Amino acid sequence: MLMRKVTKVGAMQRLARQWRQDGLRIGFVPTMGFLHDGHLSLVRRARQIVGPKGMVVLSIYVNPMQFAPTEDLAAYPRDLARDTELCRKEAVDVLFLPMNEEMYPADHGREFSTAVVEEKISRCMEGASRPTHFRGVTTVVAKLFNMVLPDVAVFGAKDFQQGAVIQRMVRDLNFPLKVVVAPTLRESDGLAMSSRNKYLQGDERRQALVLSRCLRQTRERVRKEGVVAAARLRDAVAAMVSAEPAARLDYVEFFDPETLVAVEAVEPGTQMAMATFVGRTRLIDNIKL
Amino acid sequence: MLMRKVTKVGAMQRLARQWRQDGLRIGFVPTMGFLHDGHLSLVRRARQIVGPKGMVVLSIYVNPMQFAPTEDLAAYPRDLARDTELCRKEAVDVLFLPMNEEMYPADHGREFSTAVVEEKISRCMEGASRPTHFRGVTTVVAKLFNMVLPDVAVFGAKDFQQGAVIQRMVRDLNFPLKVVVAPTLRESDGLAMSSRNKYLQGDERRQALVLSRCLRQTRERVRKEGVVAAARLRDAVAAMVSAEPAARLDYVEFFDPETLVAVEAVEPGTQMAMATFVGRTRLIDNIKL
Repeated sequence: MLMRKVTKVGAMQRLARQWRQDGLRIGFVPTMGFLHDGHLSLVRRARQIVGPKGMVVLSIYVNPMQFAPTEDLAAYPRDLARDTELCRKEAVDVLFLPMNEEMYPADHGREFSTAVVEEKISRCMEGASRPTHFRGVTTVVAKLFNMVLPDVAVFGAKDFQQGAVIQRMVRDLNFPLKVVVAPTLRESDGLAMSSRNKYLQGDERRQALVLSRCLRQTRERVRKEGVVAAARLRDAVAAMVSAEPAARLDYVEFFDPETLVAVEAVEPGTQMAMATFVGRTRLIDNIKL
Repeated sequence: MLMRKVTKVGAMQRLARQWRQDGLRIGFVPTMGFLHDGHLSLVRRARQIVGPKGMVVLSIYVNPMQFAPTEDLAAYPRDLARDTELCRKEAVDVLFLPMNEEMYPADHGREFSTAVVEEKISRCMEGASRPTHFRGVTTVVAKLFNMVLPDVAVFGAKDFQQGAVIQRMVRDLNFPLKVVVAPTLRESDGLAMSSRNKYLQGDERRQALVLSRCLRQTRERVRKEGVVAAARLRDAVAAMVSAEPAARLDYVEFFDPETLVAVEAVEPGTQMAMATFVGRTRLIDNIKL
């Protein structure tokens, strides 16, 4: 089966509308490219849901709107040739590569002035550390949904809050689709797969294991002790992170996985998420305790 | 042909998706009910566009989110029996009546926290007088679009800025549909049709003619004089409005019909819009000069 590359928004919409008219189910995996096995597991999940006759679209778009001026937009890793080959092997039907000029047209009289904002569960954690991030995410995802018209969109659980924010947006704005959040894939030593792992230099790669180690040890403790004060767990995590010379804790939070409201008494089922700089690389990870 | 009444969001979406799969075009007229000939002209326009085999949906929803606490949400006129009869006569296929509980679910864990915001052309005029209004409009219209999945949505030109804001939202967020803004219908004496005209008591009905008179006389003047300073036209309008004892000018603006940017030198083709209180009733009207 031939994989199609689509770069024009209008062409993508026409394809999607034709598929819908033909009764074909559409599965969608939005990414920023530099694909790894985690992404490919989302493609397989999408395929599983829409079936062999369904259509699977993977988009690659490094969305400027979700990066702050100080962040790594320009440096974000890209390898379209490799991504294309990976998509082909996974039997992706359409590789959708929208372009900045069409996504955010900035010509006169074509100014871009609309945003989708989630104002509750996007405030904490990533939203606190990156105040304009989720506004960029919800806006671009709404746009992509309107281009690809999916029945199901699959996101990775590593970005736990992102998955929750998008589910909230879909529900609140009644997008006619289902959001699936699929499990995080990990390297054999526990590091959560992420395109940003490529930034890690020298010993940073080893030190980056502190995230998954914190999550695992916290889970073991909560499973053993039953209920533990969040403050005590936070202290233990801070100590573990500060033991790694290149690591600096950004946040660690314990919260209800549905409402993202922080809890003081942590128990099995509580969600834990953390962000840590390792050198100049900011990594996130999370776990259900 | 039987007209169907739909109140459930899920039922509306299933219908719309089936129509799309059947290749039927969908025309959509979102309203707040208390229908008048202006609304019915939008229905006819929708029908004309989708053809006799197409489906025309008219929604009635008095959207709390677009009313400020001080505004006329509770008083907004309603007459569902009459509206239903009018829709039936106009061969509307589905009368969609979504309910508050589904539009803005407020139960625990079902809080509503997403909004669609337009942040440029929604700031002036109606947006200046009613600061949260357009946020409510864009959010509810995005929701309704995701429920009805129209090919074309028809809005009335009386709410000129609303039409422009919605066109901007559709373009920026890539909703796969066309927005049509259809001409304002007027009573025989020139008053723009509006559900709020019902509020006018006694002599207010006559005094309300000051809006259309201002527009008409300004157009005549601009057509005769060619270019006129906005300040001079504004003064003339203010004088005309203040001659009516129950009338109070809220704003009058002269602007580019595409960008809504105010102009100082008014010429033929400039758009003029105004809002005026007549007694306690706030009326709007506009014209292309």
